Amino acid sequence: MLGKAQVKYIQSLSHKKFRDEENLFIAEGPKIVAELLAEKPHAIRHIYALEEWLSNNKNLVKNINDSLITPINEKELERISQLSTPNQVLLLVEKFRIDDNIDLNKELVIMLDAIQDPGNLGTIIRIADWFGVKHIICSADCADAYNTKVVQSTMGSIMRVNVLYKNLVDYLKLQKNIRIYAAVLEGTPIQKLSGEHTGILLIGNESKGISEELLQLANKKITIPRKGDAESLNAAVATGIILSHLL
Amino acid sequence: MLGKAQVKYIQSLSHKKFRDEENLFIAEGPKIVAELLAEKPHAIRHIYALEEWLSNNKNLVKNINDSLITPINEKELERISQLSTPNQVLLLVEKFRIDDNIDLNKELVIMLDAIQDPGNLGTIIRIADWFGVKHIICSADCADAYNTKVVQSTMGSIMRVNVLYKNLVDYLKLQKNIRIYAAVLEGTPIQKLSGEHTGILLIGNESKGISEELLQLANKKITIPRKGDAESLNAAVATGIILSHLL
Repeated sequence: MLGKAQVKYIQSLSHKKFRDEENLFIAEGPKIVAELLAEKPHAIRHIYALEEWLSNNKNLVKNINDSLITPINEKELERISQLSTPNQVLLLVEKFRIDDNIDLNKELVIMLDAIQDPGNLGTIIRIADWFGVKHIICSADCADAYNTKVVQSTMGSIMRVNVLYKNLVDYLKLQKNIRIYAAVLEGTPIQKLSGEHTGILLIGNESKGISEELLQLANKKITIPRKGDAESLNAAVATGIILSHLL
Repeated sequence: MLGKAQVKYIQSLSHKKFRDEENLFIAEGPKIVAELLAEKPHAIRHIYALEEWLSNNKNLVKNINDSLITPINEKELERISQLSTPNQVLLLVEKFRIDDNIDLNKELVIMLDAIQDPGNLGTIIRIADWFGVKHIICSADCADAYNTKVVQSTMGSIMRVNVLYKNLVDYLKLQKNIRIYAAVLEGTPIQKLSGEHTGILLIGNESKGISEELLQLANKKITIPRKGDAESLNAAVATGIILSHLL
């Protein structure tokens, strides 16, 4: 059974302010929950799940203290879920420790300028994880990596990729002799880039692109050659395509 | 002013059955509406727009008969909109004539097996348009290309790409000496494919992949090499990456 205060508390975690204060985020649905329970059991602060899910997943929760598990019914799940179709189980998870030890001479990082769509950010985190990119540096006006929609669309990759928030202009100004790639409409075709695999890949807001100030700090302008008529590519798709050529 | 019957009629177009019966679809928001009015004026069946949008876009609607334009207020727009944030203007548009003249010896087509997420289908249509792919062949259980969410996420590309629905197994069995690429986890790395650019690229449902029956009809198994730990890539991202190497 869920008390009113508990419902209110969980609902409050849909706001970044409260996630930051509590150092918690929400993960929902059997797939990501199974991954989190298997890989990050110590980060689990609470499990709210349908009886059915609990009885089918005894093995997954066997190392979790009973006091951290609350069986709920479908109506209660609906009240605390942030999904349009609530899906069996909801976790409260402690935010992960971020590794901010970046060596731009040895790794490629993704830098995001104002990616505001949660689905796009989540998909980019998943792409980073696929290509072995360990760090994503976001501008302050990007979506929050612990937004529930972002967490969902990472499909678990939020556990493995370090997402940092910084002033991008200040950060780029500090770099010396580092490749800074900017994805723009007229630059070097990406097919000519194979073998280059360290530095910073800068991806801009879809409607506005990369801000002028950042663009001036980039020393390699690159392009995904267009053969048809679409005006642009989705930011996540562009990130995936460029990484597949850079790495 | 909007009558009750009109509201009901527009709302009914959220269902494929009614879109098919009426041969109509809905497009929303200033960006795609501007593109449709500029490129397909004869397909416009009705414009529902806020007064403000109408007075700012006289030029766009100057060739549209007044009887096809209904000024509405924000409350009315909310009632007919399928967006979570209604956006100034909503069009009823006649479905486009599909060009089903495909020459697999001269072009590459995308074939989608059970892509059910409207955002994914829309993004794939936009990617096709970027890379100059003219045809997408969908299984019957893919999302409907004229679903409002699909139309939104194509960002206008729905006008330029021909989306057909077919029995994929029957279609593939008819092909002789045609390259049929299947994106799988263990195949030829896509980096080795440059220069091949005709045939069929088969993309599977994200959780289930490509169905066994289709997979057996594919004669080229290809893979986006993974360097990290993500279990899979988003279907649209994978499509974009593969096309950037195939074309």
